[in-house]
Amino acid sequence: MSDAWVDGGAAGPGGGGQRARREPGREAILHAAATLAAADGLERLSVGSLATALGIPKSRLSAQFGSKQQLQLATVQEAARIFAEEVVAPALAAAPGLGQLTAVCEAFFAHVEQRTSPGGCFMAGAALELGNRPGPLRGLIDEFQARFGALLRGFVATAVKQHELPADENPDRLAFELNGIMLAADTNFVLHDDPAVLDLARQIVHQRLGG
Amino acid sequence: MSDAWVDGGAAGPGGGGQRARREPGREAILHAAATLAAADGLERLSVGSLATALGIPKSRLSAQFGSKQQLQLATVQEAARIFAEEVVAPALAAAPGLGQLTAVCEAFFAHVEQRTSPGGCFMAGAALELGNRPGPLRGLIDEFQARFGALLRGFVATAVKQHELPADENPDRLAFELNGIMLAADTNFVLHDDPAVLDLARQIVHQRLGG
Repeated sequence: MSDAWVDGGAAGPGGGGQRARREPGREAILHAAATLAAADGLERLSVGSLATALGIPKSRLSAQFGSKQQLQLATVQEAARIFAEEVVAPALAAAPGLGQLTAVCEAFFAHVEQRTSPGGCFMAGAALELGNRPGPLRGLIDEFQARFGALLRGFVATAVKQHELPADENPDRLAFELNGIMLAADTNFVLHDDPAVLDLARQIVHQRLGG
Repeated sequence: MSDAWVDGGAAGPGGGGQRARREPGREAILHAAATLAAADGLERLSVGSLATALGIPKSRLSAQFGSKQQLQLATVQEAARIFAEEVVAPALAAAPGLGQLTAVCEAFFAHVEQRTSPGGCFMAGAALELGNRPGPLRGLIDEFQARFGALLRGFVATAVKQHELPADENPDRLAFELNGIMLAADTNFVLHDDPAVLDLARQIVHQRLGG
């Protein structure tokens, strides 16, 4: 699972280590696309609007990304890659069980705090924007959320197995609660731009995990 | 506070009991606007797009709502009114303290479950969409969120005072946690369209409140 999280999401056509040389600027372009989509919504992201925002010819972007939908899909994959890098990787580097569970929450709060995306966590916003529109984009987000949920449940299950959490702790419930605290932290931080929101979220996680 | 919640949010110009007669169709139009905004985003809602969706002359809507921003503001006020009616009013009708706290969570889950808005809770989606765009629209949403947070904290404080919750229960923390469970329920229900999500959320609230 760790390989898939950290490398899988990013690998578009020609992905992997040589991507940067074969498609110069692809990551920078997708980062700009994710920023634009976070500000205006994924649905408004198009080859034309991105070209205007970047001040580069639309033809260059069309050649690289094809249709609007392909650009949107690549943008979500880039956002998922950033999430994997900023939130999942630090968690996987911690001690299995409670260590990883604590680390994933902290990494999420840090991810929100450093404002990688102007509208808070990109994937959280995308889930609410696209939740009711079936299609390949929602499919990608759905898959991402399912994997993140499974990751949290796995951390809880290991922590229970290692007696770091009570034996009757339900992984489904605790993963759901922690996901909720992350969403509340994200929404309130975006709305109020106040670090105290994240401190409160950190205290709640600490208390909930018996810290 | 109860009066403000149930009546205040809706009162636009000419609001109050005589509104329906003086401005026929206003509520139906705003309900359609909220549905459209939930599907496409508030930012894409305009007098023109709403007129097209409703199949009525743009001039009629312009006369009634004025600018795009006035229409957006009226739409958020209508969504806040629906929230007050479906979520806050049933809570206020319950027994003060733990009764109201339990009732507000259950009313929120029912609000999501009955799909009043196609993208889940309108106000939750609007907070993430507009969180990073200062202006009158964000101001309205901000005010709404602050009031809802204060409502939850007030219910917790009363429940503590009545010894229905432990004396060391922190209203800020518990209100934040419950808000998080609501957001996780909303996001996951929208994404998976599965009532089991709401059942899980109900169990978590029940357990958290010592039920």
